Amino acid sequence: MKSPDKSAAAHDATTDAAIARKAALIALDWGTTSLRAYLFDAAGKVIATRMSTAGIMNLPVPAEAGGFDAAFDEACGVWLGEAPALPVLAAGMVGSAQGWVQAPYVETPASAQALVAGIVRVRAACGVDVAVVPGVLEPGALPNVMRGEETQIFGALAATGDEAVPQTALIGLPGTHAKWVVVEGERIARFYTFMTGEIYAALCAHTILGRTMKHPAEPDTAAYLRGVSVAREQGCVGLLATAFSSRTLGLTGQLAADEQPDYLSGLVIGHELAGLEAALARRDVSLAGCAPQLIGAEALCERYRLALGAFGCGAHLVRHATEHGLWRIAMQAGLVAPR
Amino acid sequence: MKSPDKSAAAHDATTDAAIARKAALIALDWGTTSLRAYLFDAAGKVIATRMSTAGIMNLPVPAEAGGFDAAFDEACGVWLGEAPALPVLAAGMVGSAQGWVQAPYVETPASAQALVAGIVRVRAACGVDVAVVPGVLEPGALPNVMRGEETQIFGALAATGDEAVPQTALIGLPGTHAKWVVVEGERIARFYTFMTGEIYAALCAHTILGRTMKHPAEPDTAAYLRGVSVAREQGCVGLLATAFSSRTLGLTGQLAADEQPDYLSGLVIGHELAGLEAALARRDVSLAGCAPQLIGAEALCERYRLALGAFGCGAHLVRHATEHGLWRIAMQAGLVAPR
Repeated sequence: MKSPDKSAAAHDATTDAAIARKAALIALDWGTTSLRAYLFDAAGKVIATRMSTAGIMNLPVPAEAGGFDAAFDEACGVWLGEAPALPVLAAGMVGSAQGWVQAPYVETPASAQALVAGIVRVRAACGVDVAVVPGVLEPGALPNVMRGEETQIFGALAATGDEAVPQTALIGLPGTHAKWVVVEGERIARFYTFMTGEIYAALCAHTILGRTMKHPAEPDTAAYLRGVSVAREQGCVGLLATAFSSRTLGLTGQLAADEQPDYLSGLVIGHELAGLEAALARRDVSLAGCAPQLIGAEALCERYRLALGAFGCGAHLVRHATEHGLWRIAMQAGLVAPR
Repeated sequence: MKSPDKSAAAHDATTDAAIARKAALIALDWGTTSLRAYLFDAAGKVIATRMSTAGIMNLPVPAEAGGFDAAFDEACGVWLGEAPALPVLAAGMVGSAQGWVQAPYVETPASAQALVAGIVRVRAACGVDVAVVPGVLEPGALPNVMRGEETQIFGALAATGDEAVPQTALIGLPGTHAKWVVVEGERIARFYTFMTGEIYAALCAHTILGRTMKHPAEPDTAAYLRGVSVAREQGCVGLLATAFSSRTLGLTGQLAADEQPDYLSGLVIGHELAGLEAALARRDVSLAGCAPQLIGAEALCERYRLALGAFGCGAHLVRHATEHGLWRIAMQAGLVAPR
């Protein structure tokens, strides 16, 4: 009798094979620190996923030694072994200058069709062509770039029912480099990048602010909203000044050590939203009058939803934007047949 | 015949002794990363200095093992050996909770007399009393603290002749945690802290922005002023957004790798000044109408002077503020007789 491990593995292989026979598309969200592979059926439903840490800056085998092929085979090899003719689409930093093949930016205003027209293909060592979606560039005095978010945006725009997004929309994508995207007439018209996640991490790990912090067992919503409120009121004096209060309020006994992490989080997110509000106001758009959609990790989007509430703004989380976006672009590119 | 090294050392020891006999005061600027000791004559002129890296966070011997005494002896032992009755005054982080003795903050509005009243003494192992100057706290919803800068401020206020500072004044102290201090009626009335130096260093060393930078052979004034200008125009969208342009302008070929360090420097200093301008405006004070004094390292103060020019503001560097401040406080505290 086979050992339980071998039985389980054999069972998984059988299951994978059965699933792969129903598939119509493989699509990859291939970023800097992780790779997520989706298997879709012909109706655009995700029937399997595989996730690894093989982001482009984290390949187990160096790129020069075939690292992209190795990561691709590890993620998709079983599916392609069963269904070698499956089309493959990839979006994210895999199309950057440090990626598998460079898919040059498409400029704003960027439609889904423009993205499709900008797709670049790379032939994997196993013989499969991988279609790579380009990022978007907004040129100008202060240019902006995105890579991966464009796919999520068109996924959010394609949603039907409760999650449908109006065709002129403000969409927020919280993260290491948070993006705020203005969509007009189904095109990415302009966008802003806030280095909020990366700067928060640097403040905690590499400045005096982290030295008095203790990490709480649970996130402290009251401390978080206090930080948002300070940023909102002191928006124009700026983060360089308000950040210091995370320390001084501790020195004066007005903010406990285990409140400081969430207070500082509220401060930086509050400054981001104050900056967004100011940027929109320059174009006579009121943030409080918007109903933004949020795409991203659920806990982080919830933080943003709370903070937006303090700015008079009701936001909704959009789920599965990545999958919907990959499917939509695959359809528009003719990789799969529309139903 | 003695070796040249031994002759030189013997000569220095003789010179030190001769100098010490003319001295009236030892005063220490004892901060986090360095210690500077000044020897004054009875007219308040600095006749010798000694500098070491034995800041309170950098003591060669741990504090618990007598590190403060060891650093003090190393800095001042020769002088005290010759003139053991010399009074000793110290200002800076040496009076903080992590220092040799805690000299509790004096609250704003803070006069020189209030500082003197707040002096705390610590007895060194060698039997000498060291008088430690307190820092200043501005209480409130967003409190602020300084320790060491108060001494420099009163040094600048005490200056005569060309460097005299009006009794209602705005004084800037660039640095890791830049301070902007409003003096009214010879009291420190209120002040602001901007974490500009520390955050700039963290952005360069610990975010994506540093990865495309090359350090130029000479500072690039044009790139610096470009950054100041961007911050001035985009003040309210904030540093979280504008910082990203150091990278994106590189990606689009609009900013060379060896321009990025000074561009980002101009950006952060520009945001600091935009924040200061906004804070002053809330109290109906126009930054452009001020003639601020700058105290600090010369090259850094020069950067600030240039940036202030872009804000319509003419600034002057004040020299020797630390020494003048230590002498003034020593006189006011009765450690030395006035002349």
